[in-house]
Amino acid sequence: MSTNNRQWKLANRPTGLITPDVLQLSESPIPVVSDGQALARVKYLSIDPTMRVWMADVAQYMPPVQIGEVMRAFGLAEIIESRHPDYKKGDKVSGLTGFQDYALISGDEKRAFQKLPSIPFLSDINFLNLLGINGLTAYFGLLEIGKPQSGETLVVSAAAGATGSIVGQLGKIHGCRVVGIAGTDEKCKWIKDDLGFDAAINYKGPDWKQQLAAATPKGVDINFENVGGPVMQAVLDRMNLHGRVVLCGLISGYTKQDPGMASFGQVIIKRLRIEGFLIIDYVSRFMDAAQKLGMWKMTGKLKGRETIVKGLENAPEAINMLFRGDNIGKLVVEL
Amino acid sequence: MSTNNRQWKLANRPTGLITPDVLQLSESPIPVVSDGQALARVKYLSIDPTMRVWMADVAQYMPPVQIGEVMRAFGLAEIIESRHPDYKKGDKVSGLTGFQDYALISGDEKRAFQKLPSIPFLSDINFLNLLGINGLTAYFGLLEIGKPQSGETLVVSAAAGATGSIVGQLGKIHGCRVVGIAGTDEKCKWIKDDLGFDAAINYKGPDWKQQLAAATPKGVDINFENVGGPVMQAVLDRMNLHGRVVLCGLISGYTKQDPGMASFGQVIIKRLRIEGFLIIDYVSRFMDAAQKLGMWKMTGKLKGRETIVKGLENAPEAINMLFRGDNIGKLVVEL
Repeated sequence: MSTNNRQWKLANRPTGLITPDVLQLSESPIPVVSDGQALARVKYLSIDPTMRVWMADVAQYMPPVQIGEVMRAFGLAEIIESRHPDYKKGDKVSGLTGFQDYALISGDEKRAFQKLPSIPFLSDINFLNLLGINGLTAYFGLLEIGKPQSGETLVVSAAAGATGSIVGQLGKIHGCRVVGIAGTDEKCKWIKDDLGFDAAINYKGPDWKQQLAAATPKGVDINFENVGGPVMQAVLDRMNLHGRVVLCGLISGYTKQDPGMASFGQVIIKRLRIEGFLIIDYVSRFMDAAQKLGMWKMTGKLKGRETIVKGLENAPEAINMLFRGDNIGKLVVEL
Repeated sequence: MSTNNRQWKLANRPTGLITPDVLQLSESPIPVVSDGQALARVKYLSIDPTMRVWMADVAQYMPPVQIGEVMRAFGLAEIIESRHPDYKKGDKVSGLTGFQDYALISGDEKRAFQKLPSIPFLSDINFLNLLGINGLTAYFGLLEIGKPQSGETLVVSAAAGATGSIVGQLGKIHGCRVVGIAGTDEKCKWIKDDLGFDAAINYKGPDWKQQLAAATPKGVDINFENVGGPVMQAVLDRMNLHGRVVLCGLISGYTKQDPGMASFGQVIIKRLRIEGFLIIDYVSRFMDAAQKLGMWKMTGKLKGRETIVKGLENAPEAINMLFRGDNIGKLVVEL
């Protein structure tokens, strides 16, 4: 445990991947806790594609991270000292901890830190993954926007990622034929053999579009899209009349100047509905959803997997791992 | 009146605009009418962007026109001879007449020819425009997909075209602030001064994006999109949270290999819904809609305008006029 608070601060906005000049490591004394404050020691940082958007100076759903600010990140932390009425020492919390060893929680903290309930069979890390942003994103995106019907075909891209792997399992729970698209044979094997996807396609294979056609003999009714670009294009070409595209992410474009393109002709011809989706519209229903997700997890219908990177010092490189597709399942940094 | 039946047949699929090798004019005797058939003399041909799609060998909502087939087109015609129980001499009909002088209607004709009702204040040509495909497209696209609320801001592209000009007027009828985008000052003047749009923007002007921003101070709630490409891009950038994009046409891309592109980042961040739209999903409600459109027309709330090209021999060039933006309002060929 560091005796200082190490912090990764945004020094320059990235143009592609995270180069060494983008985030700067600095050290300062561990914050002193005043009345109404609590100090949390960060245990896990969630590494998500949206972080790359936060770093860019473009219009978005939250203000971008400012130059000189600690890099924003979701995380799990433990309260180690509290003069705040809502927290006591030993409480585990989740929230926007940022890329740092210690997070000071103030009374007027807008980015609330939620206490983790203690639930049998669920480890803390589940609250970043299955019961956290990824599980909730998969749940509301698929069920509210995708509206899966039994017997329909669902295609999910980045299918071995944290969100995609849950989307596919929820699709199976709701009676869909589920086809996943991922970037390595190992990922494809995992989602097919362990998670029960009906088919898995490695989009780096030469004949992947033919494989996609073969795996979707009745076309595609729902596309849960995390990637954009040529992958999305190929799925659009297989869509059925009145299909739904849940536009959740465009990771193929986040490290480029132009964030994700797709030909639109099929959208008209097939009267598709493409709906952009962010989880923040469903905050009031998080608890309901988390209960359902937790039950599916406890009854073995929903499985998670993590790729763990050790050490705050490796957090910037963890973001690059995500964009290179080096992770299977949820990517976290363990401090 | 020709004593032969002149027909424009598809000879080669176009790659861009309609070059002289694409459509070939041939002549054959006027068809002889057998039992169960009627012969119609074509009076007007409707020139629509979708014709360019019909000519391409790509997946679409109808089979593409085959090489050697008469070029498909909607038209108005008059029955000049009938041995068919549903039609008598003098009846005016609308339907897929094709690029020819005479259309033979058979008993088993799947592409039904509808008889035009005779309604005071409505000329025949209204049945190709305000009460025809364009009016119905504007009506169902805006009301069913766009769902305009009073006080919302609607932006329509190709706003001086047959469909766009009606969309804008329907937006005004439903209490929206309406901004039109068109390609000449004359078109902008027409939609603003004669049709009552709140603002009109010539996208060929150097500062058109600033004009668009100034004309949409509260952002954009509905984009009725006929154009695609950079025009759509600029409107997407102005969209409000949970805005709706009625994706009706992508005319900027129809003469290119890739039919219309748009950056998708804003779709996620603003949770937009983009829905592809074709009028054929609403066939059962055409009569209802036509009644409403006719009433608005008769009470002066809805105005039409035509650009008329004379002579079947000029029909192929009329398609090019559409893609060059040479028409204001509905483009028709008068035979």
